[in-house]
Amino acid sequence: MTGPRYTELVAGLPASVPFVGPEAQERARGAGFAARLGANESRFGPSPAAIAAMAAAAADAWMYGDPEAFDLREAIAAYHGVTRANVLVGEGIDGILGNLVRLLVAPGDAVVTSDGAYPTFNFHVAGFGGVLHKVPYDGNHEDPVALVRKAGEVGAKLVYLANPDNPMGSWHGADVVGRMIAALPDGCLLALDEAYVELAPEGTAAEIAADDPRVIRLRTFSKGHGLAGLRVGYALAAPGLIAAFDKVRNHFGMGRVAQAGALAALQDRDWLVAVRGRVEAARAGLAAIARANGLEPLPSATNFVTMDCGGDGALARAVVQALGQRSVFVRMPFVPPHDRCIRVSCGTEADLALVAAALPEALAEARKLTAV
Amino acid sequence: MTGPRYTELVAGLPASVPFVGPEAQERARGAGFAARLGANESRFGPSPAAIAAMAAAAADAWMYGDPEAFDLREAIAAYHGVTRANVLVGEGIDGILGNLVRLLVAPGDAVVTSDGAYPTFNFHVAGFGGVLHKVPYDGNHEDPVALVRKAGEVGAKLVYLANPDNPMGSWHGADVVGRMIAALPDGCLLALDEAYVELAPEGTAAEIAADDPRVIRLRTFSKGHGLAGLRVGYALAAPGLIAAFDKVRNHFGMGRVAQAGALAALQDRDWLVAVRGRVEAARAGLAAIARANGLEPLPSATNFVTMDCGGDGALARAVVQALGQRSVFVRMPFVPPHDRCIRVSCGTEADLALVAAALPEALAEARKLTAV
Repeated sequence: MTGPRYTELVAGLPASVPFVGPEAQERARGAGFAARLGANESRFGPSPAAIAAMAAAAADAWMYGDPEAFDLREAIAAYHGVTRANVLVGEGIDGILGNLVRLLVAPGDAVVTSDGAYPTFNFHVAGFGGVLHKVPYDGNHEDPVALVRKAGEVGAKLVYLANPDNPMGSWHGADVVGRMIAALPDGCLLALDEAYVELAPEGTAAEIAADDPRVIRLRTFSKGHGLAGLRVGYALAAPGLIAAFDKVRNHFGMGRVAQAGALAALQDRDWLVAVRGRVEAARAGLAAIARANGLEPLPSATNFVTMDCGGDGALARAVVQALGQRSVFVRMPFVPPHDRCIRVSCGTEADLALVAAALPEALAEARKLTAV
Repeated sequence: MTGPRYTELVAGLPASVPFVGPEAQERARGAGFAARLGANESRFGPSPAAIAAMAAAAADAWMYGDPEAFDLREAIAAYHGVTRANVLVGEGIDGILGNLVRLLVAPGDAVVTSDGAYPTFNFHVAGFGGVLHKVPYDGNHEDPVALVRKAGEVGAKLVYLANPDNPMGSWHGADVVGRMIAALPDGCLLALDEAYVELAPEGTAAEIAADDPRVIRLRTFSKGHGLAGLRVGYALAAPGLIAAFDKVRNHFGMGRVAQAGALAALQDRDWLVAVRGRVEAARAGLAAIARANGLEPLPSATNFVTMDCGGDGALARAVVQALGQRSVFVRMPFVPPHDRCIRVSCGTEADLALVAAALPEALAEARKLTAV
């Protein structure tokens, strides 16, 4: 009686997961976090209209969602001035990235990203046997010129850029991204992750023709729209690429409640404007807290502020842990030199007060621990 | 400026999708269906407790769902008398099947199923380059002996059995499935799809030890629990196989609203009992309607009744179409000889009245059309 025979590829994959959720930490510590500021969720919540739409759809949850997500894709298309054929809806950017990698990357194929960028993208590339080539950030910014150069060197099928960037919060103007696209090697697709772009300064979102075959741009309802727990992302790309997802996607994977909530969120533009304002205020508040504690807040075009603790990874890890012990959940960049920082999501005034109260003690404890 | 370079495997996949949703048909006909009885959804809806839980969770949808789905998996484990390590939660059985095939099936690997069984399984096998071997049904039943024999012949890594079966509604007793498991070739995993088993006679669900490495059983909240539009399925298997999914799954793919709704549904056992009763009544009602129209209703252990129209596939297709024109959405089996039948989901008394009213006309029209 033997067990299943995994593919060679799967047998060689590590058992690691991209992120451990805060709930696992809460179970380990036996108490919930008072300030949940580690996953760049929108503490300001979804639009009341979206909440109402989800509640109304709950009674209809006996019906599968429309596998074509017609109404939602129509609304997204209208919002962006493209056609429905340019729009894919999927289970968050994570889910779409997984299918995108599956479409392009066979074992041994080259893919390029920045060292320290989104781990879930790397997880998918490894999961399909791709060979990941990483280029360093240029300071706190991803380096479009280096990404394109590397893509040319290794013959990459796919290159990833997040703009704005996570975990550093930095961003490039649309012109920089435009030049990157113009310089892409032939047959290399840019996966442009714009998860945070609704919260960025005007002029950050790249201008890309609807039928441009060189780029797929990724958007989400998880950040500005405050619907991380609904799992709806979307992609904008040329119709051929959008149609290719039909060959592999989970057609009924986007449920009725999710489609209803996302549609209502998209239509409540006032809510997004209000969230932008609250995010800007929270960024300023977090920056002030950082400075008051001798940390350097990095400029941010996102719903989080990355704070340079002025030490190494050990110090920042100790700060994250000490904050956690004080009921404040934050995360930090994974790789040097960025792991000198902690990353704190925007929160309510009450959240920020908890950070302000906990940070001095957490820093002192972390410094004492890491000085040993 | 060239487009993306797809993998050889993807480039060779057909553009077809496993199912077209009823919404697409509604858009084509310019009107909604009055009786939605084609997708084996639960017309009796989800538990009121589940509706309330989803509505309550909607306001919390700014938070990602627990990627470990701890509470839901604990509850499922308790329900089945296994441990959390035996339980995987995923985006419906469809999503779990996709990841299961990905874990086991490399291009060229052999997989076995029944000719006419669940097309979405076949879609996933093709999508990962597997070679699908099909065995005929034995009458209206899947044939466990033939499946196992074929699996041995071709060295299959994976064999699929739905019990109860869709689209025929037939079922085997637990003893038959137990003998099938005992006869599996070494290293061949049985994917036992029990989507409908909560609606089947006692003694249908197979008895399988929690750590048996030969079987993964698949369950869903889409059928008896009435939550097709929430997209939550689960799998029970040995801990090693459950853990392997962590290497490839979309860890944050199961949202907070979905987990809350599923948990509440699982806990409302009275609702499931009530649904069973209504399903049984509806099966009897549909059978009576079939007989009144000279059709033979097949025995069913599911929430649908498959009706033998007594002709060929062309006749049944014409009946499905004629019913649709009369605002009654049903589907039918895809392959001969099963495509002599139409498949009608259980519905409310109002739904059944619509079927009873539409079927005589639809049959007459279909017979006239196909007699030409």
